Amino acid sequence: MQKLGVAVLGATGAVGQRFIQLLENHPWFYVAEVIGSSRSAGQPYGEITNWVLDGSVPKSVEHLIVKPLDGHFDSPLVFSALPKEAAETREVELAVDGHIVCTNASVNRMEEDFPLLLPEVNFNHLKLIDVQREKRGWKTGAVVANSNCTAMPVVMALEPLKQFGITKIIVVSAQAVSGAGYPGVASLDILDNMIPYVSGDEQKLETETLRMLGSFNGTKVDWLDAKLSASCNRVPVVDGHLVNISVELTANPGLDEIITTWTNFRAPDAVANLPSAPKHPLYYLPQIDRPQSRRDRNAGNGMSTSIGRLRECPILGYKFVALSHNTIRGAAGCSILNAELIASHGYIDTFQPKTALSAI
Amino acid sequence: MQKLGVAVLGATGAVGQRFIQLLENHPWFYVAEVIGSSRSAGQPYGEITNWVLDGSVPKSVEHLIVKPLDGHFDSPLVFSALPKEAAETREVELAVDGHIVCTNASVNRMEEDFPLLLPEVNFNHLKLIDVQREKRGWKTGAVVANSNCTAMPVVMALEPLKQFGITKIIVVSAQAVSGAGYPGVASLDILDNMIPYVSGDEQKLETETLRMLGSFNGTKVDWLDAKLSASCNRVPVVDGHLVNISVELTANPGLDEIITTWTNFRAPDAVANLPSAPKHPLYYLPQIDRPQSRRDRNAGNGMSTSIGRLRECPILGYKFVALSHNTIRGAAGCSILNAELIASHGYIDTFQPKTALSAI
Amino acid sequence: MQKLGVAVLGATGAVGQRFIQLLENHPWFYVAEVIGSSRSAGQPYGEITNWVLDGSVPKSVEHLIVKPLDGHFDSPLVFSALPKEAAETREVELAVDGHIVCTNASVNRMEEDFPLLLPEVNFNHLKLIDVQREKRGWKTGAVVANSNCTAMPVVMALEPLKQFGITKIIVVSAQAVSGAGYPGVASLDILDNMIPYVSGDEQKLETETLRMLGSFNGTKVDWLDAKLSASCNRVPVVDGHLVNISVELTANPGLDEIITTWTNFRAPDAVANLPSAPKHPLYYLPQIDRPQSRRDRNAGNGMSTSIGRLRECPILGYKFVALSHNTIRGAAGCSILNAELIASHGYIDTFQPKTALSAI
Amino acid sequence: MQKLGVAVLGATGAVGQRFIQLLENHPWFYVAEVIGSSRSAGQPYGEITNWVLDGSVPKSVEHLIVKPLDGHFDSPLVFSALPKEAAETREVELAVDGHIVCTNASVNRMEEDFPLLLPEVNFNHLKLIDVQREKRGWKTGAVVANSNCTAMPVVMALEPLKQFGITKIIVVSAQAVSGAGYPGVASLDILDNMIPYVSGDEQKLETETLRMLGSFNGTKVDWLDAKLSASCNRVPVVDGHLVNISVELTANPGLDEIITTWTNFRAPDAVANLPSAPKHPLYYLPQIDRPQSRRDRNAGNGMSTSIGRLRECPILGYKFVALSHNTIRGAAGCSILNAELIASHGYIDTFQPKTALSAI
Repeated sequence: MQKLGVAVLGATGAVGQRFIQLLENHPWFYVAEVIGSSRSAGQPYGEITNWVLDGSVPKSVEHLIVKPLDGHFDSPLVFSALPKEAAETREVELAVDGHIVCTNASVNRMEEDFPLLLPEVNFNHLKLIDVQREKRGWKTGAVVANSNCTAMPVVMALEPLKQFGITKIIVVSAQAVSGAGYPGVASLDILDNMIPYVSGDEQKLETETLRMLGSFNGTKVDWLDAKLSASCNRVPVVDGHLVNISVELTANPGLDEIITTWTNFRAPDAVANLPSAPKHPLYYLPQIDRPQSRRDRNAGNGMSTSIGRLRECPILGYKFVALSHNTIRGAAGCSILNAELIASHGYIDTFQPKTALSAI
Repeated sequence: MQKLGVAVLGATGAVGQRFIQLLENHPWFYVAEVIGSSRSAGQPYGEITNWVLDGSVPKSVEHLIVKPLDGHFDSPLVFSALPKEAAETREVELAVDGHIVCTNASVNRMEEDFPLLLPEVNFNHLKLIDVQREKRGWKTGAVVANSNCTAMPVVMALEPLKQFGITKIIVVSAQAVSGAGYPGVASLDILDNMIPYVSGDEQKLETETLRMLGSFNGTKVDWLDAKLSASCNRVPVVDGHLVNISVELTANPGLDEIITTWTNFRAPDAVANLPSAPKHPLYYLPQIDRPQSRRDRNAGNGMSTSIGRLRECPILGYKFVALSHNTIRGAAGCSILNAELIASHGYIDTFQPKTALSAI
Repeated sequence: MQKLGVAVLGATGAVGQRFIQLLENHPWFYVAEVIGSSRSAGQPYGEITNWVLDGSVPKSVEHLIVKPLDGHFDSPLVFSALPKEAAETREVELAVDGHIVCTNASVNRMEEDFPLLLPEVNFNHLKLIDVQREKRGWKTGAVVANSNCTAMPVVMALEPLKQFGITKIIVVSAQAVSGAGYPGVASLDILDNMIPYVSGDEQKLETETLRMLGSFNGTKVDWLDAKLSASCNRVPVVDGHLVNISVELTANPGLDEIITTWTNFRAPDAVANLPSAPKHPLYYLPQIDRPQSRRDRNAGNGMSTSIGRLRECPILGYKFVALSHNTIRGAAGCSILNAELIASHGYIDTFQPKTALSAI
Repeated sequence: MQKLGVAVLGATGAVGQRFIQLLENHPWFYVAEVIGSSRSAGQPYGEITNWVLDGSVPKSVEHLIVKPLDGHFDSPLVFSALPKEAAETREVELAVDGHIVCTNASVNRMEEDFPLLLPEVNFNHLKLIDVQREKRGWKTGAVVANSNCTAMPVVMALEPLKQFGITKIIVVSAQAVSGAGYPGVASLDILDNMIPYVSGDEQKLETETLRMLGSFNGTKVDWLDAKLSASCNRVPVVDGHLVNISVELTANPGLDEIITTWTNFRAPDAVANLPSAPKHPLYYLPQIDRPQSRRDRNAGNGMSTSIGRLRECPILGYKFVALSHNTIRGAAGCSILNAELIASHGYIDTFQPKTALSAI
């Protein structure tokens, strides 16, 4: 099987770098095109990029010449780490031009016919690609989004609890600085400090979560019918978003029943065999003081969600803690898993990975 | 007016040091006796103490010889920064011996006849001293506690809202490492990390808060009749406990009305004129991203509580953020303010400060 | 005595804010004019300023309307927290217009006729004002600089050792993030990290230090004849620059003799009585593990330098550690002390503080 | 090839855990015995261990029952993460009993007949095993030490420069908190702080470095004849010891020549093919601001040393920065590499790995 060359938009930024890093040695894809701002276009990626992750720019991409955002791209599959403003129109233009755009940008997440995809949770939302293609007259193009990095662990932890009837959710987050990109949070703002505000994230959490937990009805997603209150905070942690969650469940299950439900949770086969899918989407940690941001963010190569401290909540019934790696599972890693799901379902007509498909 | 010599129990520990620091240059009290463990007893305080606060041991106490805990103390007023085990029986023994013990230890806080005092909130709980003296046959002794350092900002922020009918409270804390004393939290556990657990604090928050917000009925305190759910977290911050609070209020006040209520909140006169009372017990900060741990913990010399981000909560109706300095207002500073209130009400028969008294 | 209204250039930046904070309640000066970028000009200081220090914008300046840098200023005394580019020509223009400019900018520090002033060390360099006025034809104007924030503790610690013949100095710094201004160092660059590079600072240390330790010969400063090697590092600390210093002394004094020299070091009378002068310019700390950035940066209200760990160096003979608060003593606080010295020597013809003067 | 079961002494501590982690999936060795304090002996490793590294106790060891230190061990190869006091006599006893002890403890490092081994640098010091066996009458036992975690990057960076004639070395370290073990450094001591002191490390650096860089003369090691001055500091970094080094070289090579020397440096074949040997023992990083603690500590799986910022030093001629992972290459990882070298040279008579040997 020949690997598929892909393009990365916003490749020089923090999330763009995470795409580059995770695509290094990917079994299906390789980075063929890197796209940056007009400032960096025309220069070698390795020279123009201020690499903020560990180590250095991978050898395989350092000599790629950065292309401008308004140019032409050869790759049928495009990953977007664009900032909001740049993403808004360009991502749709690229879909019009026939590209499949897997985007981390928030701006196109809530379009009714764009899947907001977390494969283990809502892989059948993928069929919105058919809806959008029909509605917009796209033949090969598509836009598929991954969610906000703080909504992500909430959705992952709550999905297995939907069977118990979720009615109310209160989330208080503690978000790592990498969630704000680079340069992002000033060190003077966060050393020995905590900021009880993350611009825009409370609103995103209160909408994206319910959409992702919703059901695809053949033409659109019916949102989960529950109330959600989110309070977002920034903490002096490099990577890893931790959430304290209280939840009301109408079926009133026992604590052990919930833990068993989490422990037994597996991705559907269509997802479980994808290259980036973690063996365990969820871990329930029995220790009294886990999950912890630094010690658990890399579980499942940063693709698993860790849960702990399930106990009774005197107000809503249940409370617990969940944690995910915000720039891997909560951003680039999720977009890559989404692209694997898309490819394995034949949506990229020039590329067919050798993976057995399950029907959606 | 001659100053009153006081004793500090557990003087070499982190909270003990905060007592020493705050009593330096106090207008009514001076440190006459420092009491430590058997390991440090008999040695000069300045030599045996590993001073963990800024700067060095104050000159005025460095030559005091540390006394053993089981010895005799001359001071009628005793501040206790003892650990739980040491506090349990010794504090009561000292009260039996005629001392007034203002304690930061958790172990004696929930005795029904011991005031759990936050003067701006419940200064009339002070009358429990009369109750305990009568019940226990104490003439001059007493035990008066200050609260858990995380319950404290919750209580301070909620007191002005009691008029609106508080029924449900959800608190998620982000607590500084100084709350765990010294050596306390290992740096390997907290650098670039967050720990979603603080031993014992959730239970303390769920009980102490309701007791402090309760009403003294002449013989005991009737607790506030509300439900409270607490989730406690440790963050890499030196000082300052921040809480995200959601609250249900039966009267359904407007947001502006609540802010006005907080802004207009003042201590009763009996408290407002005490030396350690802050001019403003509460500040409501209008900025979208405040209060912040480092930038607001020292408001009012560490004795004020800062509140911000009041907004609607889709579940409970209201949510906001509050912050206090945990080792000043949440520990030693509160105990000193409590002692000032006690002294100003004539409970120390050998010391009468020159302050106009209000009737309770 | 009526206070003198002063202007602060670059008032909205991090060092500008420190000027505003330190001038609040200053006995001689008050902030009459705040000057900012074209973006902020015309707007109230309290609204346009993102206050990054503790607490909030002082009440006394929050309603001042920010003036543009190219406008006219009434204040004879101007403090400059301008960035390099803006400072280069504007500071000299203001001196031409008759203002005395006390600047923290690096760009004008090394002009041969501009004093680079650290009052306890080289207060007689002040006479360069006479030299510059004569040379440039200025009647009332002047430019006086304070030094680089890392050179400052080096100079302060070495001044008392000049008597022993300093020949070689090796400095390795650990600099706080506030030294880079705001937003300055990105949190992703410094959390759980150390950066062995601070742009420009090694070169500044290797020149400014020797100039400040030099002698005014009546027309210019003869630099200290010594070799200096500097290595600059950024560490995850909010405030406080710590330096490890090795030094060669030709007189070969004993360790105790050096400690005594430091302990006995006092500012000359002309400096010691100034409002911002610390009682002790230097503290020698006897503890084995001091000075420490957080615990010692506020010594003398941030105006004292703390020294510790003097011991033999197998290569240069002596080594020790020094620490100063980089945005107080190393920036705004030093500029204010410089201005006090200038005023007390009659250089501001419209303002004469009531302080006994010593002859230089 | 059957794997060799090994024992880990002090297995429940921070360095012991690193041994366990690095031996998981090792191609030659597996952990057969875990040895702990009397407190933990008799209990399952997974239950008694407070795992402080990322993730959790590996499945393969969690059910091993912790053995007491004074018991009998079956494994011929023993790794020791014992504290100094426990190590002093027990390690020698075990060698007397026929075990080969690869130790991270400082206490036995400077015995004249115990190799202090950093394989890429001084692999022929291994022959001290023959010396010690003859001298002490040991048949199969031996004690082999790895060095202090801060001396390690100094030695690694200087080894290739020995050809230029090293005469003077000044080292200023910035050491991670993991170097102090667990609980080790209190968070109150290091958050927003720097401590210019690490107990014992300056003395260790000034001796171990010269011994490791010395030559084995057939019976003992002739130390490198150079002067070394070390200043040790603790910084708020989890892992990674960074050193600023100035060095005097008699041959006066050009900067490019030194960089080429580092870049071309390779381990001798006897070392390069060992399982834990990094492909590149040294990396020279061209960026102006590297190496950085967090971003470069994991180079070569934590086994490579990163160097950067080579430039002229006005005092000693040359200065640069070096960085290594202190608990991998500077502790457990080095001990494991040492053991691989020992095994591959036939010192463990019951175990012969399939690796081509080079003559020493």
